[in-house]
This record gives sequence, C-alpha cells and structure tokens, in this order.
Amino acid sequence: MRMLINVPESVVPDALRGMAAAHPELTVDVDRRIVVRRDAPVAGKVALVSGGGSGHEPLHGGFVGPGMLDAACPGEVFTSPVPDQMVAAAAAVDSGEGVLFVVKNYTGDVLNFDMAAELAEDEGVRLAKVLVQDDVAVTDSTHTAGRRGTGATLFVEKIAGALAAEGAPLERVADTARRVAESSRSFGVALSACSTPSKGGPMFELPPGELELGVGIHGEPGRERRAMMTSGEIAQAAVDAVLEELPSQQPVLALVNGMGATPLLELYGFCGEVHRVLAERRVPVARTLVGNYVTSLDMAGASVTLCPADEELLRLWDAPVRTPGLRWGV
Amino acid sequence: MRMLINVPESVVPDALRGMAAAHPELTVDVDRRIVVRRDAPVAGKVALVSGGGSGHEPLHGGFVGPGMLDAACPGEVFTSPVPDQMVAAAAAVDSGEGVLFVVKNYTGDVLNFDMAAELAEDEGVRLAKVLVQDDVAVTDSTHTAGRRGTGATLFVEKIAGALAAEGAPLERVADTARRVAESSRSFGVALSACSTPSKGGPMFELPPGELELGVGIHGEPGRERRAMMTSGEIAQAAVDAVLEELPSQQPVLALVNGMGATPLLELYGFCGEVHRVLAERRVPVARTLVGNYVTSLDMAGASVTLCPADEELLRLWDAPVRTPGLRWGV
Repeated sequence: MRMLINVPESVVPDALRGMAAAHPELTVDVDRRIVVRRDAPVAGKVALVSGGGSGHEPLHGGFVGPGMLDAACPGEVFTSPVPDQMVAAAAAVDSGEGVLFVVKNYTGDVLNFDMAAELAEDEGVRLAKVLVQDDVAVTDSTHTAGRRGTGATLFVEKIAGALAAEGAPLERVADTARRVAESSRSFGVALSACSTPSKGGPMFELPPGELELGVGIHGEPGRERRAMMTSGEIAQAAVDAVLEELPSQQPVLALVNGMGATPLLELYGFCGEVHRVLAERRVPVARTLVGNYVTSLDMAGASVTLCPADEELLRLWDAPVRTPGLRWGV
Repeated sequence: MRMLINVPESVVPDALRGMAAAHPELTVDVDRRIVVRRDAPVAGKVALVSGGGSGHEPLHGGFVGPGMLDAACPGEVFTSPVPDQMVAAAAAVDSGEGVLFVVKNYTGDVLNFDMAAELAEDEGVRLAKVLVQDDVAVTDSTHTAGRRGTGATLFVEKIAGALAAEGAPLERVADTARRVAESSRSFGVALSACSTPSKGGPMFELPPGELELGVGIHGEPGRERRAMMTSGEIAQAAVDAVLEELPSQQPVLALVNGMGATPLLELYGFCGEVHRVLAERRVPVARTLVGNYVTSLDMAGASVTLCPADEELLRLWDAPVRTPGLRWGV
C-alpha cells in the first residue's frame, strides 16, 4: 500500500480537516461532512448542492465557491453520501430562492438525493434535481442503471453555477443544467487500476501492457480490455465513441481529464491528439480544459468529455468562478 | 509501461502541441520548444524566463502568463533545456527592461542558463539570475552541488512575477526573487518511484511498504529509506526538517505539493497534518496552496515548502495571476 494516509477509516475526515486549513473561504463541517461557501446563503440566489463518493477530487468539494456550487456532501470513498448530509447542506445554503441538486447517475446517489429532496421539501425548501449521465461506454454498469455520470458533472456545475450567480430563477437554472447534462458525453480509459484505502490494493486487475477502454470512475468495467495503444489511438477511440452519441456537433467545450495518476505532461500530449481527431472529424473546439478534475484516486488514464455549446453556454462557461479546483475571471 | 504517450521520443513536442491547442493565450513554439505569453514583450515590464527538464508540470510552462513567467523553456524529460532555447525566449520577451532567469539548482540548468545569459547579454539584453536551492534533504546530490531546487521555484516565480507586473525595475525584481529563494525551504517524500518514458519503467526501486524520506524531484535519493509511515508521521518529519533550516519563523506561505500520482484526497489529508504540526511548533500559516504543482511524473508522494512572508511578500503572493497552472484575482 503506497498511500499517504493515517488509517483507512479516517481518510475522508482527515481530508476535510485539510480543506478547512487550506481554504478559509469555505466552511467545512467535518462532523456532518459538508463543505459550504462561507458567505452562504447568498441572498436572492438559487443554491447548487452536489455530492457523491469521495475519491474524485477536486469534484465536488473543490468546486464549492462563487460561480459554482454552494455546498458539497462527500461520502466515504466511492460511496454515496447520506440524505442527512444533503438536507443539512440544502438548509445551510437556501436563501429562499430554492436549491438545485446535481446528481451523478449511480444508484446510491440517486436514491439518497431523492430521499433528501423529499425531506428538504418537507422543510419548505424548493427543490429541483438534475441527473448527470454522460458516459457512453456502457448502459447499465456495476453501480448504475443507464449511463454513468462522470466528467459532464463539471460542465453542469460550472454553467448552472454561473447562471445562478446571475440571479436566474430555479426553473431556469434547472433547465439549463439539464440541457448541459443531456447534451454532454464522455468516454474514459484506464491504464492502471485505482486502489481504495479500505481495500488497500487495486480495485481490479489490469496487467501492465493492457488498458481498459470505457472504464468508469470507480474502476467499473468498460467496453473492452485491449493491448496497450498509443495516445493517438486512444484519443481516436475515445473521441469517436463520444461523437457517435453526441446530440449535436456545434462547437464543443472539451474536457481532457486525468484520472489521477497520469502526469500532466502526458495529459497535454493526449489533449493534442484529442484536438487532432476532432479537427479530422470537423468538430470545432470552442474551449478546452486540461487537468485532473474528475478523478479516480490513483488510477492512471484519462477521459474526454464534450458538450456542444451555443453562445449562451459559452458565456456562462467563461463567467467568473472562484473555487479551490476551478478559478478564473475573479 | 502504463504511459499515455505515442513514442518516448515525441513526449515533449506532443505535450507542447496539446498546450498550444488548449491555451490560445500562449504562443507555443513546438520546434524551438519555448512557451511564451502571447502579448510578449509587455512594454515597460521586466520579463521572467524559466525552464528546466520536462516532467514537473505544470512547472514551468504552466506558469506562463500575466503575473508570473513571460516564457518557459522545457527540456527533454528530466534534462536541462539548451542555451539556444533560453536565448530565444529572452529575445521574445525582453521589452528593454531586462530579463530575470529563474534557475533551479541542477548542474545542467545552471551551466546552460549561465551560457544563455552571456549570449543574451552579448545581444544587448540586460540579464539577472536567481538560483533556487530550497531542498533541505541533502547537500550535493545526483545532479546538484548544494541544495536542490524544488517547490520554492513556484514561490519565486509567483512573487517576482507579481512585482514585475507592477513595473518594478530589474534590480528590485531580482532582489525580491533572491530573498524568496534564499528564505524558502522544502522537503519531499516518495511513496513510489517515477517512471520516465525513455526508461519505460521505474527510475529507482522502492518496494511497496517502504518510502524515501527527502527524495528529489527526479527520484534522486533522499536521507533515508524507511518502512511506511502514517500521513501524520510523514508531515512531522517533513515539517521538522524544513523548520530546522528555515531562516525565520514569521508567518509562512505553505505549499503542500503532490508529486504527481498521490490523489488529491490524500494530499488534503496530508495538508491537515502539516497544519497540525505547524500549529504545534507555533508557526503561523498565512497562506496555503495544495495541489500538484512541482511534480515528478507519476511519482506518489508529496513535499512541503515553506517561505517566511512579510506583508510585502503576502501582497505579491495575493496579486492577480493568470496562467494555466495557477490562476486567481483576474
């Protein structure tokens, strides 16, 4: 085990203590496990709440701040947070304008956010939900009925967060979030398995010299196991898989995302190949984000997420954001 | 080999093509291997140029932009760039106010930047240099006479870059850069070895269950090989090693840096432990930066860099910066 941890049981609260220390602009409740904008609730603004299993950082706690999420609920590693966390988060951030839950499509998350929505509504919070299900690799998977939710979560949280920051009402924020979620598609590749603290070793076997095409962000199986491919071949497989199911080919937002352990040097090389393939397919790229944003602990590999973007979505993408994990324009 | 590459020989130009695709705000000369602010030279501003072996991304190319570097020269992986790159970079960014070379203390970098400085001066560029040598783990090492240059490079480039952006003259920018370089100290720990593309495997042997205390950013040996320690124990060893040689204990800037493959979840936990140890040692922390900034390809591990900071340095640290790897306030 090559992990920088104390004991497996304390990984999540230990990380939350570190977030609190590094980010005085956030309120981190280690006991209740919620990360909240320090200035929440923001008067007149719809609030965004997301969450999910830990191990995908900076998603979601690292996306809390002006222009993106108002609160995040981290679960145990690769395990859904519980409804109590979500209800507490909603109560902490609701200004009276309502709350949007951003939910990745995994059975546990979906059930728990549904229950939390009912509980929060009982307490008088106006609630809307958006389900992110962008991963084209498989339908139905280890933890999912339908497509898995992966990289598009970042697009949804950034764009809906920008619209909420402008003062748009809940219905419009939710509609735009759904438009982004429904039009984005992703495909991921693993070059090594991730290791969870509780297991203390790899989540699955991936012999050196092989890769998993279409892997999920918890190491769920993808489409096929293949002998090692070049960066260019991987880019072609990933981009073509995404384009095949992309509803529109207007200019796209592109996320070239690292799974955690792939060096940024390699990720930029992969980004070049993704751009090359997109140019060959005549898909214009409006914006590109490269880095480790929706990770799978120490998995080596990468994913590509594309979102067709009109002028309105591009404007919201470019709008200021100030979070630990994504920051520009302010 | 679990690398997301085409062939080992093209890793650096491939990455530069990806940087060009993702960052239209930079001019990336793939053939000459220089990364330059698109708006360079900036009239009336001292220019900062750095560079070094590739494999430490986002350092240095990811730190090019307003408020930080004007240009970066990437060498091959873990290999110094050549003087021609540095001279071309200096010529591309010099507005007439002079150029500061930021040099990490490795023999190849030092020799090549020295030669480049002479060549650039012959062409009429006013040149100053700052040598970064912050790693307290060892004196004299595989590639170094004296302390190695590591995490403090980020502090030097950010703070001197902010001062240059304010229009300070070359002598003052260089003095401040040297003040930061001379007062910063670092200590790194490896939980796994990094693998270079050309070697195709680990740079050194580190059996599972052991760690290397005081490792360098190219996998150079540190102080000792130990059986695995907890995050808290590692934080104590690293912080105490740094504090022992820190010239001052006024409030510090803290960089809690990932070596590349350590998940952000673990790095935040480690950050919490670093803060705990600093609090026990009664060292106040003014600012904390957590993330993968000065990496060693796919090495698992982390480093701690501290820089005592007065009001002037804090102001410069907080000043706006807009680069691919570090961005705030604009």
